[in-house]
Amino acid sequence: MPSQRALGVAVVGTGKMGADHVRRLHQVVSGARVTAVVDIEVERARTLAEGIDGCTAYTDPTAAMAAQDVDAVLIASPGPAHEAALLEALRRDLPVLCEKPLTPDAASALRVMDAEQKLGHRRIQVGFMRRYDAEYMKLERLLRSGQLGNTLMLHHRHRNPAMPPWFTNEMLINDSVVHEMDVTRWLLDQEITAVTVLKPAPSSYAPEGMDDPQFVLFETESGALVDVEIFGHCGYGYQVQAEAVCERGTVRIGDESGPWLSADGRWGGAVTPDYLERFADAYDRQVQAWVDATRRGEVTGPSVWDGYAAAAVCEAGVSAQRDGQRVEVELIERPALYE
Amino acid sequence: MPSQRALGVAVVGTGKMGADHVRRLHQVVSGARVTAVVDIEVERARTLAEGIDGCTAYTDPTAAMAAQDVDAVLIASPGPAHEAALLEALRRDLPVLCEKPLTPDAASALRVMDAEQKLGHRRIQVGFMRRYDAEYMKLERLLRSGQLGNTLMLHHRHRNPAMPPWFTNEMLINDSVVHEMDVTRWLLDQEITAVTVLKPAPSSYAPEGMDDPQFVLFETESGALVDVEIFGHCGYGYQVQAEAVCERGTVRIGDESGPWLSADGRWGGAVTPDYLERFADAYDRQVQAWVDATRRGEVTGPSVWDGYAAAAVCEAGVSAQRDGQRVEVELIERPALYE
Amino acid sequence: MPSQRALGVAVVGTGKMGADHVRRLHQVVSGARVTAVVDIEVERARTLAEGIDGCTAYTDPTAAMAAQDVDAVLIASPGPAHEAALLEALRRDLPVLCEKPLTPDAASALRVMDAEQKLGHRRIQVGFMRRYDAEYMKLERLLRSGQLGNTLMLHHRHRNPAMPPWFTNEMLINDSVVHEMDVTRWLLDQEITAVTVLKPAPSSYAPEGMDDPQFVLFETESGALVDVEIFGHCGYGYQVQAEAVCERGTVRIGDESGPWLSADGRWGGAVTPDYLERFADAYDRQVQAWVDATRRGEVTGPSVWDGYAAAAVCEAGVSAQRDGQRVEVELIERPALYE
Amino acid sequence: MPSQRALGVAVVGTGKMGADHVRRLHQVVSGARVTAVVDIEVERARTLAEGIDGCTAYTDPTAAMAAQDVDAVLIASPGPAHEAALLEALRRDLPVLCEKPLTPDAASALRVMDAEQKLGHRRIQVGFMRRYDAEYMKLERLLRSGQLGNTLMLHHRHRNPAMPPWFTNEMLINDSVVHEMDVTRWLLDQEITAVTVLKPAPSSYAPEGMDDPQFVLFETESGALVDVEIFGHCGYGYQVQAEAVCERGTVRIGDESGPWLSADGRWGGAVTPDYLERFADAYDRQVQAWVDATRRGEVTGPSVWDGYAAAAVCEAGVSAQRDGQRVEVELIERPALYE
Repeated sequence: MPSQRALGVAVVGTGKMGADHVRRLHQVVSGARVTAVVDIEVERARTLAEGIDGCTAYTDPTAAMAAQDVDAVLIASPGPAHEAALLEALRRDLPVLCEKPLTPDAASALRVMDAEQKLGHRRIQVGFMRRYDAEYMKLERLLRSGQLGNTLMLHHRHRNPAMPPWFTNEMLINDSVVHEMDVTRWLLDQEITAVTVLKPAPSSYAPEGMDDPQFVLFETESGALVDVEIFGHCGYGYQVQAEAVCERGTVRIGDESGPWLSADGRWGGAVTPDYLERFADAYDRQVQAWVDATRRGEVTGPSVWDGYAAAAVCEAGVSAQRDGQRVEVELIERPALYE
Repeated sequence: MPSQRALGVAVVGTGKMGADHVRRLHQVVSGARVTAVVDIEVERARTLAEGIDGCTAYTDPTAAMAAQDVDAVLIASPGPAHEAALLEALRRDLPVLCEKPLTPDAASALRVMDAEQKLGHRRIQVGFMRRYDAEYMKLERLLRSGQLGNTLMLHHRHRNPAMPPWFTNEMLINDSVVHEMDVTRWLLDQEITAVTVLKPAPSSYAPEGMDDPQFVLFETESGALVDVEIFGHCGYGYQVQAEAVCERGTVRIGDESGPWLSADGRWGGAVTPDYLERFADAYDRQVQAWVDATRRGEVTGPSVWDGYAAAAVCEAGVSAQRDGQRVEVELIERPALYE
Repeated sequence: MPSQRALGVAVVGTGKMGADHVRRLHQVVSGARVTAVVDIEVERARTLAEGIDGCTAYTDPTAAMAAQDVDAVLIASPGPAHEAALLEALRRDLPVLCEKPLTPDAASALRVMDAEQKLGHRRIQVGFMRRYDAEYMKLERLLRSGQLGNTLMLHHRHRNPAMPPWFTNEMLINDSVVHEMDVTRWLLDQEITAVTVLKPAPSSYAPEGMDDPQFVLFETESGALVDVEIFGHCGYGYQVQAEAVCERGTVRIGDESGPWLSADGRWGGAVTPDYLERFADAYDRQVQAWVDATRRGEVTGPSVWDGYAAAAVCEAGVSAQRDGQRVEVELIERPALYE
Repeated sequence: MPSQRALGVAVVGTGKMGADHVRRLHQVVSGARVTAVVDIEVERARTLAEGIDGCTAYTDPTAAMAAQDVDAVLIASPGPAHEAALLEALRRDLPVLCEKPLTPDAASALRVMDAEQKLGHRRIQVGFMRRYDAEYMKLERLLRSGQLGNTLMLHHRHRNPAMPPWFTNEMLINDSVVHEMDVTRWLLDQEITAVTVLKPAPSSYAPEGMDDPQFVLFETESGALVDVEIFGHCGYGYQVQAEAVCERGTVRIGDESGPWLSADGRWGGAVTPDYLERFADAYDRQVQAWVDATRRGEVTGPSVWDGYAAAAVCEAGVSAQRDGQRVEVELIERPALYE
């Protein structure tokens, strides 16, 4: 692919997340252009395509991927639709940025992994965008440097002001805690081996039938202990914090910053209202990194293995959540392609 | 007792903590004077007594309590010696401030409680001095006000730079985490019902045979979930932090403050080196509050019930630590005297 | 004076500040007792005296100082009454803690200084209590250690929620900025040589005729430049902050700390409502240090020289404020007693 | 200009700043491509051009602007070269993003302003990129909202770890404080009317002949008072902070954030090492905003008037710095084009 030509991207799925990626590719990211948008709701795709010169609307991902001007695919459709789109992209050897989850369960993730291994080179990057957040990146570099010794514990806080009414207990694991699963694996550079889910008495603001907050424990290969407070209805804003407890020091990220106001008897600032604002730069940096790597002919970010491992830990997490037991995580042996 | 006359206090035990209380009563606290110091090491008691006008050295607590000029007793001897001293003080109806632990186990705490109940009024205050720390007091008032709704979780961090070589796994529970047990009970105004102790892979700076850090979980009567990171060898200072997760907000105390230095490429400040500096004001306030209440003829602080409950939770904690199981806490029914 | 006997203190002036000192000496400070209270409003003094065993009410400071049980004097009467009381105390060689200002102007301060010099030893401590504030003490030690090199600038912020209606432009200098004058002299260990007062357009919340806020500049012997924002009607609380700009680093004190609350879309905490809360520990520490030093027969805190220098700088400040000019500070040569 | 076609940009000047803008336009910013690079050092321009498809190297700005594929000009050459390039771009009616300063003095800025006025519409944006910094933008919105009442004072801190050896006293005003001049004018939405420069005793780390730090005072049309600490050799990092003092509250930006490390007896974090890291997002956002506006046919950022006003205030500042006097700022009446 000539590095000077803008990368033609097909965006599959044009819901909230997909439409935001279309905007990002079109207006923010350098070196890419949206040449196809795909949605089964044809009107939604057509409206988006009309605003972009040289962009075509499709209802079928396969047709979009067959188009001359499509060099790469960004998948933002619902999770159950990912497997078919990923397999088709691999069949055509197209680079893919796939929103998390890779697929809804470990078995389907393994099928995608098989296909990529048969292709013989990595083509798929999973959208774990926290790896591109400035503070997480600094934390990762610090832990990786070894200057603080081994990491013994991680304390995560993941708070949302409120959840949509259709959000379920399982989604707290699969859609929210999955981020802490991935950053834990990435920060510690090892797999999660067991999951326990504890449920304090729920907040009276949680919907009927939802256990909110929950407290999730991970154990890892080295014996590190990781806890995650997941709170879907904290009411006051979106807070993502992490603290690493190491042998020679502790590190904390995610404290609020920005304008510090003193007025009306109080000091402080505004809590970030949602994840799109908190991680806007991370999303931008992620897509830019992917475009750049793709134009260089490389694949650099979270891999299918990362997506599969997250799916496997999620399965253990949902099981632990349901049965109130500590559940061990089962992983296949890591294929050579993902070493 | 005439409120204008200084309170004559016998200090039982003159080790590190006892000698510090002698200094405090003599030089810091208003309205009290040290009239007796007691230690089986007679020279240590005599040296202390010589520096204080009207103060007599004793080796026997009973003799000291019988003295004309002793109005009250502060017990700072080793835990196994507490029961006898407490029973003697109750026999003489003397007010007591007793360093934690009340007694080393729940059975002996129950015997002291029986004696105080037979006396018919409270005479004993237990030295859980965090209840007098300015930040904890603000946190308690805030939680008690109800403005944040129910408290759902508490996250505690308790870090020491290093532990003395004779410190054991059990002491991590009985001497360190006991503080979090008491503030949890006090902040939530309810009992702890179960304890679990998790042990991540230890720091290489922990002594052979010590599991450090540990992660302790409490469950409470209302279903609140409480976690405690206890880290004996964090290496960098003494940090005590707490975060309450409530239905309508979270509150954090224990962040470092004081001089904020920017130099050598870094911003920040000094971590408090030890608990005596961190809680100096709390110790002073505790003793002053006790002197004042005593001179008014009242008993106001943590009671024998609080000391007993801490002993019972510690027993569950050590058991949980040893067996790796969740252990339920057994408490007797709360006597009317402590309602 | 036998060090074991409680120090008998006469408190002269029983307004807001004097009554608070009576309470502190009676209930907080160890080793002192209030044996006399003096006020021209006899009923106010009598009411206070009745609550304290062995305390007598007086209307005449001279009579109080002549009493057998008065070992020392705390002066908290209005500034114009200070000179006579100070001279009488010096005549009787009694130790004095004198609330700031020492006297209302430099000329009267010089008369007090003469009398103390004729006495031949220091007896008077001036009540600049910020020197006893924990953060200021840490800042002073850090600057004095030399590790940051020379101090080049100091930025002070001094904000009050509101001022009483009778507060004047001159009082902003003489009663408020005087604290920054003293801490500047103490932190830099040198005299202030010139003062400039700048007046931005006033807040619409300032009373008619008051220029609020003001911005005061000090120059010092070493050429350091010091600025003070004095804001009498900031509306939201009491904030005292200082930042030292040194050759190898900067240091900031006075950032809010304590409970950090996240709720209602905001993070932060409460601003201290007034100076009594912000500096409660400093007041206590100051009086305790004075009692202790007095019982040892020593005088250790801010001296008459410090009070005089503050008076002289205030005079320059009011002049600079009135005329809009930079005004140089005139000081007599420092007497040997105050080296 | 068709909004779908990438904007062809000629970058004039390929030193440190110009080369960084070439990288940004080429790799970061969406919707633009670098079609020309101009430098009198032909080799430098040629090397840059070779790495970019469709980019031509020039030594003469006029020739570059005449090229078919040049739609807009980014000027990053030394200040004295700006006037000629700006006039040429205006002659051709090309949009310009001009690095600050607009021109080196007020007289030349006025000539550029004349030319733009004769053209009849705005074409020039000045590169005051702090207006695109996330924290400054939040501060500006907050002040503009009126919820805090009038802004009475601004306190600025502008610290660099060290300055290159050829940096002069005048450059402290013209190249560093000029940023505070612009943000002051922008935040307060009014002109600066007078400047005073105060010089404390210099740091021993300042080069021979340089007065560092300096303390600059601005007065504004509404009577607001603004102070700027400019410190070229603070030694420890790059810190830009601002505090607005308003009638009903104060706001502070620029406190360090990001990873908060506790280790080795200290808590805190790293100070940003330089302005490229601190303001990286601001630079990106600025160029992106300019590209987007240009493609819409609009000019939206700081105008020639802003550049001229900064030049005039700088002239007053250098004069005040030289003569030690307060110097009033002279501005022409604001032309209608810049209302």
